[in-house]
Amino acid sequence: MSIGQKIYEGKAKILYTTDDPDILLTHFKDDATAFNAQKRGSIQGKGEINCAMSAHLFKLMESNGVPTHFIDCPAPNEMRVKSVKILPLEVVVRNIAAGSLCQQTGLKLGTILSKPFVEFYYKNDDLGDPLLTLDRLRLLDLATDDQVDQLRRMALRINDLLTAFFDQCGITLVDFKLEFGIDSKNQLLLADEISPDTCRLWNQTETDPDRRVMDKDRFRRDLGNVEEAYRQVLERVLGQVV
Amino acid sequence: MSIGQKIYEGKAKILYTTDDPDILLTHFKDDATAFNAQKRGSIQGKGEINCAMSAHLFKLMESNGVPTHFIDCPAPNEMRVKSVKILPLEVVVRNIAAGSLCQQTGLKLGTILSKPFVEFYYKNDDLGDPLLTLDRLRLLDLATDDQVDQLRRMALRINDLLTAFFDQCGITLVDFKLEFGIDSKNQLLLADEISPDTCRLWNQTETDPDRRVMDKDRFRRDLGNVEEAYRQVLERVLGQVV
Repeated sequence: MSIGQKIYEGKAKILYTTDDPDILLTHFKDDATAFNAQKRGSIQGKGEINCAMSAHLFKLMESNGVPTHFIDCPAPNEMRVKSVKILPLEVVVRNIAAGSLCQQTGLKLGTILSKPFVEFYYKNDDLGDPLLTLDRLRLLDLATDDQVDQLRRMALRINDLLTAFFDQCGITLVDFKLEFGIDSKNQLLLADEISPDTCRLWNQTETDPDRRVMDKDRFRRDLGNVEEAYRQVLERVLGQVV
Repeated sequence: MSIGQKIYEGKAKILYTTDDPDILLTHFKDDATAFNAQKRGSIQGKGEINCAMSAHLFKLMESNGVPTHFIDCPAPNEMRVKSVKILPLEVVVRNIAAGSLCQQTGLKLGTILSKPFVEFYYKNDDLGDPLLTLDRLRLLDLATDDQVDQLRRMALRINDLLTAFFDQCGITLVDFKLEFGIDSKNQLLLADEISPDTCRLWNQTETDPDRRVMDKDRFRRDLGNVEEAYRQVLERVLGQVV
Protein backbone atom coordinates (compact mmCIF):
# COMPACT_ATOMS: atom_id res chain seq x y z
CA MET A 1 0.00 0.00 0.00
CA SER A 2 1.47 3.34 -1.02
CA ILE A 3 0.84 6.53 0.92
CA GLY A 4 -0.94 9.21 -1.07
CA GLN A 5 -1.81 12.81 -0.40
CA LYS A 6 -2.11 14.43 2.99
CA ILE A 7 -5.81 15.28 3.25
CA TYR A 8 -6.02 16.54 6.82
CA GLU A 9 -3.61 17.54 9.55
CA GLY A 10 -5.08 17.87 13.02
CA LYS A 11 -3.44 18.65 16.33
CA ALA A 12 -2.44 15.02 17.01
CA LYS A 13 -2.82 13.15 13.73
CA ILE A 14 -2.26 13.42 9.98
CA LEU A 15 -4.53 11.68 7.51
CA TYR A 16 -3.33 10.42 4.11
CA THR A 17 -5.10 8.85 1.20
CA THR A 18 -3.96 5.38 0.07
CA ASP A 19 -4.24 3.52 -3.23
CA ASP A 20 -7.58 2.16 -1.98
CA PRO A 21 -10.22 4.94 -1.99
CA ASP A 22 -12.04 3.27 0.92
CA ILE A 23 -8.94 3.27 3.15
CA LEU A 24 -7.03 6.13 4.77
CA LEU A 25 -3.75 6.08 6.67
CA THR A 26 -3.54 7.85 10.02
CA HIS A 27 -0.15 9.01 11.27
CA PHE A 28 -0.15 9.61 15.07
CA LYS A 29 2.06 12.58 16.04
CA ASP A 30 4.01 13.24 19.25
CA ASP A 31 2.67 16.84 19.21
CA ALA A 32 0.54 17.76 22.18
CA THR A 33 -1.81 20.72 22.42
CA ALA A 34 -4.27 21.88 25.06
CA PHE A 35 -6.79 24.68 25.63
CA ASN A 36 -7.72 24.79 21.93
CA ALA A 37 -4.02 24.81 20.92
CA GLN A 38 -3.12 27.82 23.07
CA LYS A 39 -0.67 25.50 24.84
CA ARG A 40 1.65 23.50 22.62
CA GLY A 41 4.31 20.94 23.30
CA SER A 42 5.44 17.43 22.55
CA ILE A 43 5.20 14.15 24.43
CA GLN A 44 7.97 11.78 23.37
CA GLY A 45 6.59 8.49 22.09
CA LYS A 46 2.98 9.67 22.28
CA GLY A 47 2.26 8.86 18.65
CA GLU A 48 3.20 5.21 19.07
CA ILE A 49 1.52 4.91 22.48
CA ASN A 50 -1.78 6.38 21.31
CA CYS A 51 -1.73 4.34 18.12
CA ALA A 52 -1.10 1.06 19.96
CA MET A 53 -3.63 1.79 22.68
CA SER A 54 -6.31 2.89 20.22
CA ALA A 55 -5.76 -0.24 18.12
CA HIS A 56 -6.13 -2.43 21.21
CA LEU A 57 -9.31 -0.70 22.32
CA PHE A 58 -10.85 -0.56 18.84
CA LYS A 59 -10.38 -4.33 18.70
CA LEU A 60 -12.12 -4.57 22.09
CA MET A 61 -15.02 -2.56 20.66
CA GLU A 62 -15.26 -4.62 17.48
CA SER A 63 -15.25 -7.89 19.42
CA ASN A 64 -18.19 -6.52 21.41
CA GLY A 65 -20.23 -5.50 18.40
CA VAL A 66 -19.34 -1.79 18.28
CA PRO A 67 -18.31 -0.95 14.69
CA THR A 68 -15.15 1.15 14.34
CA HIS A 69 -13.06 2.60 11.51
CA PHE A 70 -10.04 0.48 12.55
CA ILE A 71 -8.36 -1.86 10.06
CA ASP A 72 -4.77 -2.48 11.20
CA CYS A 73 -1.43 -0.86 12.06
CA PRO A 74 1.22 -1.10 9.32
CA ALA A 75 3.74 0.71 11.56
CA PRO A 76 3.90 1.55 15.30
CA ASN A 77 2.53 5.07 14.80
CA GLU A 78 0.37 4.35 11.75
CA MET A 79 -3.16 3.04 11.54
CA ARG A 80 -5.14 2.10 8.46
CA VAL A 81 -8.75 3.12 8.85
CA LYS A 82 -11.94 2.97 6.81
CA SER A 83 -12.62 6.22 5.00
CA VAL A 84 -15.62 7.83 6.71
CA LYS A 85 -17.23 11.26 6.82
CA ILE A 86 -16.47 12.51 10.33
CA LEU A 87 -19.47 14.12 12.09
CA PRO A 88 -18.51 17.60 13.42
CA LEU A 89 -19.36 16.49 16.96
CA GLU A 90 -17.31 15.62 20.00
CA VAL A 91 -19.32 13.08 21.96
CA VAL A 92 -18.24 13.19 25.60
CA VAL A 93 -19.21 10.60 28.20
CA ARG A 94 -18.81 11.54 31.85
CA ASN A 95 -18.75 9.22 34.85
CA ILE A 96 -17.08 11.58 37.33
CA ALA A 97 -17.10 15.40 37.31
CA ALA A 98 -13.86 16.92 35.96
CA GLY A 99 -12.61 19.55 33.53
CA SER A 100 -15.06 21.95 31.90
CA LEU A 101 -18.03 20.33 33.66
CA CYS A 102 -16.58 21.48 37.01
CA GLN A 103 -15.58 24.90 35.67
CA GLN A 104 -19.02 25.54 34.18
CA THR A 105 -21.24 24.12 36.91
CA GLY A 106 -19.23 24.61 40.10
CA LEU A 107 -19.42 20.85 40.78
CA LYS A 108 -16.46 19.62 42.82
CA LEU A 109 -13.74 17.69 40.95
CA GLY A 110 -14.28 14.00 41.55
CA THR A 111 -18.03 14.14 42.19
CA ILE A 112 -19.37 10.78 41.08
CA LEU A 113 -22.35 11.24 38.73
CA SER A 114 -25.38 9.17 39.75
CA LYS A 115 -25.43 7.85 36.18
CA PRO A 116 -23.07 8.45 33.26
CA PHE A 117 -24.12 11.12 30.83
CA VAL A 118 -23.41 11.96 27.25
CA GLU A 119 -22.70 15.50 26.06
CA PHE A 120 -22.30 16.84 22.55
CA TYR A 121 -19.81 19.55 21.63
CA TYR A 122 -19.47 21.31 18.30
CA LYS A 123 -16.11 20.23 16.82
CA ASN A 124 -15.09 23.70 15.68
CA ASP A 125 -11.74 25.16 16.73
CA ASP A 126 -12.68 28.70 15.70
CA LEU A 127 -15.59 28.63 18.15
CA GLY A 128 -13.62 26.79 20.86
CA ASP A 129 -15.58 23.51 20.62
CA PRO A 130 -18.69 24.83 22.44
CA LEU A 131 -21.16 22.69 24.38
CA LEU A 132 -24.34 21.98 22.42
CA THR A 133 -27.89 21.65 23.64
CA LEU A 134 -30.06 19.36 21.53
CA ASP A 135 -31.85 22.44 20.13
CA ARG A 136 -28.53 23.95 19.02
CA LEU A 137 -27.39 20.64 17.54
CA ARG A 138 -30.63 20.50 15.51
CA LEU A 139 -30.41 24.18 14.58
CA LEU A 140 -26.90 23.70 13.18
CA ASP A 141 -28.04 20.51 11.45
CA LEU A 142 -24.99 18.64 12.76
CA ALA A 143 -26.75 15.27 12.97
CA THR A 144 -30.25 13.88 12.55
CA ASP A 145 -32.37 13.06 15.60
CA ASP A 146 -31.94 9.37 14.77
CA GLN A 147 -28.16 9.78 14.63
CA VAL A 148 -28.18 11.60 17.97
CA ASP A 149 -30.15 8.75 19.58
CA GLN A 150 -27.80 6.20 18.06
CA LEU A 151 -24.69 8.18 19.09
CA ARG A 152 -25.98 8.35 22.66
CA ARG A 153 -26.66 4.61 22.76
CA MET A 154 -23.28 3.75 21.22
CA ALA A 155 -21.45 6.15 23.56
CA LEU A 156 -23.06 4.59 26.65
CA ARG A 157 -22.32 1.08 25.38
CA ILE A 158 -18.67 2.06 24.74
CA ASN A 159 -18.57 3.57 28.23
CA ASP A 160 -19.76 0.28 29.75
CA LEU A 161 -17.10 -1.66 27.86
CA LEU A 162 -14.26 0.80 28.55
CA THR A 163 -15.15 1.33 32.21
CA ALA A 164 -15.04 -2.43 32.85
CA PHE A 165 -11.84 -2.81 30.83
CA PHE A 166 -9.96 0.03 32.54
CA ASP A 167 -11.18 -1.19 35.92
CA GLN A 168 -9.35 -4.47 35.22
CA CYS A 169 -6.26 -2.33 34.55
CA GLY A 170 -6.63 -0.63 37.95
CA ILE A 171 -7.65 2.59 36.21
CA THR A 172 -10.83 4.65 36.73
CA LEU A 173 -12.35 6.01 33.53
CA VAL A 174 -13.43 9.52 34.56
CA ASP A 175 -14.61 10.82 31.18
CA PHE A 176 -13.68 10.60 27.51
CA LYS A 177 -14.30 12.11 24.09
CA LEU A 178 -15.35 10.15 21.04
CA GLU A 179 -15.72 11.02 17.39
CA PHE A 180 -17.84 9.15 14.91
CA GLY A 181 -17.91 8.86 11.16
CA ILE A 182 -20.46 7.75 8.57
CA ASP A 183 -19.40 5.15 6.02
CA SER A 184 -20.64 4.72 2.45
CA LYS A 185 -23.51 2.53 3.73
CA ASN A 186 -24.63 5.38 6.06
CA GLN A 187 -23.50 3.34 9.08
CA LEU A 188 -22.08 5.11 12.15
CA LEU A 189 -18.56 3.96 13.03
CA LEU A 190 -16.47 4.87 16.05
CA ALA A 191 -13.50 6.82 14.66
CA ASP A 192 -10.62 9.06 15.86
CA GLU A 193 -8.71 7.44 18.78
CA ILE A 194 -9.09 6.19 22.35
CA SER A 195 -6.01 7.25 24.31
CA PRO A 196 -4.75 9.31 27.27
CA ASP A 197 -5.21 12.30 24.94
CA THR A 198 -8.95 11.70 24.80
CA CYS A 199 -9.74 9.98 28.12
CA ARG A 200 -9.34 11.12 31.73
CA LEU A 201 -7.79 8.15 33.51
CA TRP A 202 -7.09 7.94 37.24
CA ASN A 203 -4.71 5.42 38.80
CA GLN A 204 -6.78 3.48 41.35
CA THR A 205 -3.74 2.88 43.58
CA GLU A 206 -3.20 6.63 44.09
CA THR A 207 -5.48 8.88 46.13
CA ASP A 208 -3.59 12.15 45.67
CA PRO A 209 -5.58 14.21 43.13
CA ASP A 210 -2.45 15.09 41.13
CA ARG A 211 -0.50 11.85 41.44
CA ARG A 212 -3.44 9.72 40.28
CA VAL A 213 -3.69 11.52 36.89
CA MET A 214 -2.57 9.27 33.97
CA ASP A 215 -3.81 11.34 31.02
CA LYS A 216 -3.35 14.61 29.13
CA ASP A 217 -4.25 16.58 32.27
CA ARG A 218 -0.58 15.94 33.27
CA PHE A 219 0.38 18.02 30.23
CA ARG A 220 -2.47 20.58 30.58
CA ARG A 221 -1.72 21.18 34.23
CA ASP A 222 2.11 20.81 34.08
CA LEU A 223 2.08 17.88 36.51
CA GLY A 224 5.26 16.33 35.06
CA ASN A 225 6.02 12.70 34.11
CA VAL A 226 3.64 12.93 31.17
CA GLU A 227 5.40 10.35 29.02
CA GLU A 228 5.77 7.92 31.94
CA ALA A 229 2.05 8.13 32.66
CA TYR A 230 1.10 7.48 29.03
CA ARG A 231 3.55 4.57 28.92
CA GLN A 232 2.15 3.07 32.11
CA VAL A 233 -1.40 3.26 30.77
CA LEU A 234 -0.34 1.50 27.58
CA GLU A 235 1.47 -1.24 29.52
CA ARG A 236 -1.60 -1.94 31.63
CA VAL A 237 -3.89 -1.86 28.60
CA LEU A 238 -1.70 -4.25 26.57
CA GLY A 239 -1.49 -6.52 29.63
CA GLN A 240 -5.22 -7.17 29.30
CA VAL A 241 -6.23 -9.66 26.65
CA VAL A 242 -9.09 -8.33 24.52
CA MET B 1 -46.99 50.06 53.68
CA SER B 2 -43.59 50.68 55.25
CA ILE B 3 -40.35 49.60 53.61
CA GLY B 4 -38.37 47.09 55.62
CA GLN B 5 -34.96 45.56 55.23
CA LYS B 6 -32.95 45.31 52.04
CA ILE B 7 -32.82 41.58 51.37
CA TYR B 8 -31.11 41.52 47.99
CA GLU B 9 -29.29 43.92 45.73
CA GLY B 10 -28.78 42.81 42.15
CA LYS B 11 -27.25 44.61 39.22
CA ALA B 12 -30.47 46.43 38.26
CA LYS B 13 -32.82 46.10 41.23
CA ILE B 14 -32.97 46.17 45.02
CA LEU B 15 -35.46 44.05 46.96
CA TYR B 16 -36.91 45.11 50.32
CA THR B 17 -39.20 43.38 52.77
CA THR B 18 -42.50 45.09 53.64
CA ASP B 19 -44.81 44.84 56.64
CA ASP B 20 -46.62 42.05 54.78
CA PRO B 21 -44.45 38.89 54.75
CA ASP B 22 -46.01 37.80 51.44
CA ILE B 23 -45.09 41.06 49.68
CA LEU B 24 -41.71 42.49 48.66
CA LEU B 25 -40.87 45.88 47.23
CA THR B 26 -38.61 46.09 44.16
CA HIS B 27 -36.65 49.27 43.54
CA PHE B 28 -35.55 49.59 39.90
CA LYS B 29 -32.10 51.20 39.57
CA ASP B 30 -30.63 53.31 36.75
CA ASP B 31 -27.40 51.28 37.02
CA ALA B 32 -26.50 49.31 33.90
CA THR B 33 -24.05 46.44 33.67
CA ALA B 34 -23.04 44.11 30.87
CA PHE B 35 -20.74 41.15 30.28
CA ASN B 36 -21.32 39.81 33.80
CA ALA B 37 -20.73 43.29 35.33
CA GLN B 38 -17.32 43.76 33.65
CA LYS B 39 -18.84 46.83 31.98
CA ARG B 40 -20.64 49.24 34.28
CA GLY B 41 -22.55 52.45 33.68
CA SER B 42 -25.83 54.19 34.18
CA ILE B 43 -28.79 54.87 31.92
CA GLN B 44 -30.70 57.92 33.09
CA GLY B 45 -34.34 57.16 33.79
CA LYS B 46 -33.87 53.40 33.22
CA GLY B 47 -35.30 52.49 36.63
CA GLU B 48 -38.61 54.20 35.92
CA ILE B 49 -38.75 53.01 32.30
CA ASN B 50 -38.12 49.36 33.15
CA CYS B 51 -40.54 49.50 36.07
CA ALA B 52 -43.36 51.00 33.98
CA MET B 53 -42.75 48.69 31.02
CA SER B 54 -42.55 45.59 33.21
CA ALA B 55 -45.78 46.57 34.99
CA HIS B 56 -47.56 47.00 31.65
CA LEU B 57 -46.33 43.67 30.30
CA PHE B 58 -46.97 41.76 33.54
CA LYS B 59 -50.59 42.99 33.29
CA LEU B 60 -50.67 41.72 29.71
CA MET B 61 -49.47 38.34 30.95
CA GLU B 62 -51.97 38.18 33.81
CA SER B 63 -54.88 39.10 31.52
CA ASN B 64 -53.84 36.18 29.31
CA GLY B 65 -53.67 33.66 32.12
CA VAL B 66 -49.90 33.71 32.77
CA PRO B 67 -49.39 34.13 36.54
CA THR B 68 -46.77 36.71 37.57
CA HIS B 69 -45.35 38.12 40.79
CA PHE B 70 -46.68 41.63 39.95
CA ILE B 71 -48.99 43.48 42.37
CA ASP B 72 -48.74 47.22 41.69
CA CYS B 73 -46.39 50.22 41.49
CA PRO B 74 -46.50 52.53 44.53
CA ALA B 75 -43.94 54.85 42.88
CA PRO B 76 -42.56 55.23 39.31
CA ASN B 77 -39.48 53.12 40.03
CA GLU B 78 -41.00 50.81 42.64
CA MET B 79 -43.00 47.65 42.19
CA ARG B 80 -44.73 45.60 44.84
CA VAL B 81 -44.39 41.91 44.07
CA LYS B 82 -45.45 38.62 45.62
CA SER B 83 -42.67 37.07 47.68
CA VAL B 84 -41.45 34.02 45.77
CA LYS B 85 -38.43 31.74 45.82
CA ILE B 86 -36.56 32.60 42.60
CA LEU B 87 -35.34 29.56 40.66
CA PRO B 88 -31.60 29.89 39.87
CA LEU B 89 -32.32 29.70 36.15
CA GLU B 90 -32.35 32.20 33.34
CA VAL B 91 -34.94 31.01 30.85
CA VAL B 92 -34.12 32.43 27.42
CA VAL B 93 -36.46 32.33 24.42
CA ARG B 94 -34.95 32.94 20.99
CA ASN B 95 -36.78 33.82 17.78
CA ILE B 96 -33.83 35.22 15.84
CA ALA B 97 -30.13 34.40 16.30
CA ALA B 98 -28.22 37.06 18.25
CA GLY B 99 -25.75 37.47 21.12
CA SER B 100 -24.13 34.40 22.66
CA LEU B 101 -26.02 32.05 20.33
CA CYS B 102 -24.15 33.59 17.37
CA GLN B 103 -20.82 33.70 19.20
CA GLN B 104 -21.09 30.06 20.26
CA THR B 105 -22.51 28.51 17.11
CA GLY B 106 -21.20 30.73 14.33
CA LEU B 107 -24.80 31.39 13.17
CA LYS B 108 -25.13 34.77 11.45
CA LEU B 109 -26.74 37.58 13.46
CA GLY B 110 -30.35 37.91 12.37
CA THR B 111 -30.84 34.30 11.23
CA ILE B 112 -34.54 33.58 11.76
CA LEU B 113 -34.98 30.33 13.70
CA SER B 114 -37.44 27.94 12.06
CA LYS B 115 -39.23 27.78 15.41
CA PRO B 116 -38.59 29.63 18.68
CA PHE B 117 -36.53 27.76 21.20
CA VAL B 118 -36.09 27.85 24.94
CA GLU B 119 -32.67 27.69 26.61
CA PHE B 120 -31.78 27.39 30.26
CA TYR B 121 -28.79 29.13 31.82
CA TYR B 122 -27.48 28.72 35.36
CA LYS B 123 -28.08 32.04 37.16
CA ASN B 124 -24.67 32.17 38.80
CA ASP B 125 -22.46 35.25 38.40
CA ASP B 126 -19.35 33.47 39.70
CA LEU B 127 -19.64 30.94 36.88
CA GLY B 128 -20.68 33.54 34.27
CA ASP B 129 -24.28 32.28 33.86
CA PRO B 130 -23.33 29.21 31.80
CA LEU B 131 -25.62 27.49 29.29
CA LEU B 132 -27.20 24.32 30.70
CA THR B 133 -28.04 21.09 28.97
CA LEU B 134 -30.99 19.21 30.49
CA ASP B 135 -28.55 16.68 31.96
CA ARG B 136 -26.58 19.45 33.68
CA LEU B 137 -29.78 21.10 34.92
CA ARG B 138 -30.83 17.74 36.45
CA LEU B 139 -27.34 17.06 37.80
CA LEU B 140 -27.32 20.41 39.64
CA ASP B 141 -30.88 19.78 40.83
CA LEU B 142 -31.91 23.30 39.74
CA ALA B 143 -35.50 22.32 38.92
CA THR B 144 -37.59 19.17 38.69
CA ASP B 145 -38.38 17.63 35.29
CA ASP B 146 -42.01 18.74 35.76
CA GLN B 147 -40.89 22.29 36.45
CA VAL B 148 -38.66 22.27 33.38
CA ASP B 149 -41.58 21.14 31.20
CA GLN B 150 -43.81 23.79 32.74
CA LEU B 151 -41.15 26.50 32.37
CA ARG B 152 -40.73 25.62 28.71
CA ARG B 153 -44.49 25.75 28.08
CA MET B 154 -44.87 29.05 29.97
CA ALA B 155 -41.87 30.59 28.19
CA LEU B 156 -43.26 29.69 24.75
CA ARG B 157 -46.72 31.01 25.71
CA ILE B 158 -45.13 34.27 26.95
CA ASN B 159 -43.17 34.44 23.70
CA ASP B 160 -46.37 34.15 21.65
CA LEU B 161 -48.01 36.95 23.68
CA LEU B 162 -44.98 39.25 23.67
CA THR B 163 -44.12 38.68 19.99
CA ALA B 164 -47.65 39.65 18.95
CA PHE B 165 -47.69 42.62 21.34
CA PHE B 166 -44.32 44.04 20.24
CA ASP B 167 -45.26 43.49 16.61
CA GLN B 168 -48.20 45.87 17.17
CA CYS B 169 -45.60 48.35 18.50
CA GLY B 170 -43.55 48.02 15.30
CA ILE B 171 -40.87 46.15 17.23
CA THR B 172 -39.42 42.71 16.51
CA LEU B 173 -38.85 40.57 19.61
CA VAL B 174 -35.50 38.89 18.85
CA ASP B 175 -34.93 37.08 22.16
CA PHE B 176 -35.49 37.62 25.87
CA LYS B 177 -34.60 36.32 29.33
CA LEU B 178 -37.15 35.37 31.96
CA GLU B 179 -36.87 34.43 35.60
CA PHE B 180 -39.45 32.48 37.54
CA GLY B 181 -40.28 32.07 41.20
CA ILE B 182 -42.20 29.54 43.25
CA ASP B 183 -44.89 30.84 45.63
CA SER B 184 -46.04 29.31 48.91
CA LYS B 185 -48.55 27.12 46.99
CA ASN B 186 -45.68 25.72 44.87
CA GLN B 187 -47.01 27.56 41.83
CA LEU B 188 -44.58 28.91 39.20
CA LEU B 189 -44.91 32.68 38.70
CA LEU B 190 -43.18 34.85 36.12
CA ALA B 191 -40.90 37.16 38.12
CA ASP B 192 -38.01 39.62 37.59
CA GLU B 193 -38.79 42.13 34.79
CA ILE B 194 -39.58 42.43 31.08
CA SER B 195 -37.69 45.42 29.71
CA PRO B 196 -35.04 46.54 27.20
CA ASP B 197 -32.53 45.20 29.76
CA THR B 198 -33.88 41.67 29.32
CA CYS B 199 -35.23 41.64 25.74
CA ARG B 200 -33.54 42.19 22.38
CA LEU B 201 -35.87 44.53 20.51
CA TRP B 202 -35.41 45.69 16.92
CA ASN B 203 -37.19 48.69 15.43
CA GLN B 204 -39.11 47.38 12.40
CA THR B 205 -38.80 50.71 10.56
CA GLU B 206 -34.98 50.49 10.56
CA THR B 207 -32.95 48.04 8.50
CA ASP B 208 -29.47 49.13 9.57
CA PRO B 209 -28.22 46.47 12.04
CA ASP B 210 -27.02 49.11 14.53
CA ARG B 211 -29.76 51.72 14.14
CA ARG B 212 -32.56 49.18 14.63
CA VAL B 213 -31.34 48.19 18.13
CA MET B 214 -33.70 49.42 20.90
CA ASP B 215 -32.34 47.46 23.87
CA LYS B 216 -29.34 46.98 26.15
CA ASP B 217 -27.17 46.06 23.17
CA ARG B 218 -26.94 49.86 22.61
CA PHE B 219 -25.15 50.00 25.98
CA ARG B 220 -23.20 46.76 25.53
CA ARG B 221 -21.93 47.76 22.11
CA ASP B 222 -21.56 51.52 22.75
CA LEU B 223 -24.07 52.40 20.02
CA GLY B 224 -25.16 55.66 21.70
CA ASN B 225 -28.68 57.04 22.33
CA VAL B 226 -29.34 54.36 24.93
CA GLU B 227 -31.79 56.37 27.01
CA GLU B 228 -33.66 57.57 23.90
CA ALA B 229 -34.09 54.00 22.69
CA TYR B 230 -35.41 52.81 26.08
CA ARG B 231 -37.77 55.78 26.19
CA GLN B 232 -39.06 55.09 22.68
CA VAL B 233 -39.75 51.45 23.52
CA LEU B 234 -41.71 52.52 26.61
CA GLU B 235 -43.75 55.06 24.65
CA ARG B 236 -44.72 52.49 22.06
CA VAL B 237 -45.51 49.89 24.75
CA LEU B 238 -47.69 52.27 26.76
CA GLY B 239 -49.42 53.31 23.54
CA GLN B 240 -50.83 49.81 23.25
CA VAL B 241 -53.83 49.06 25.46
CA VAL B 242 -53.38 45.78 27.31
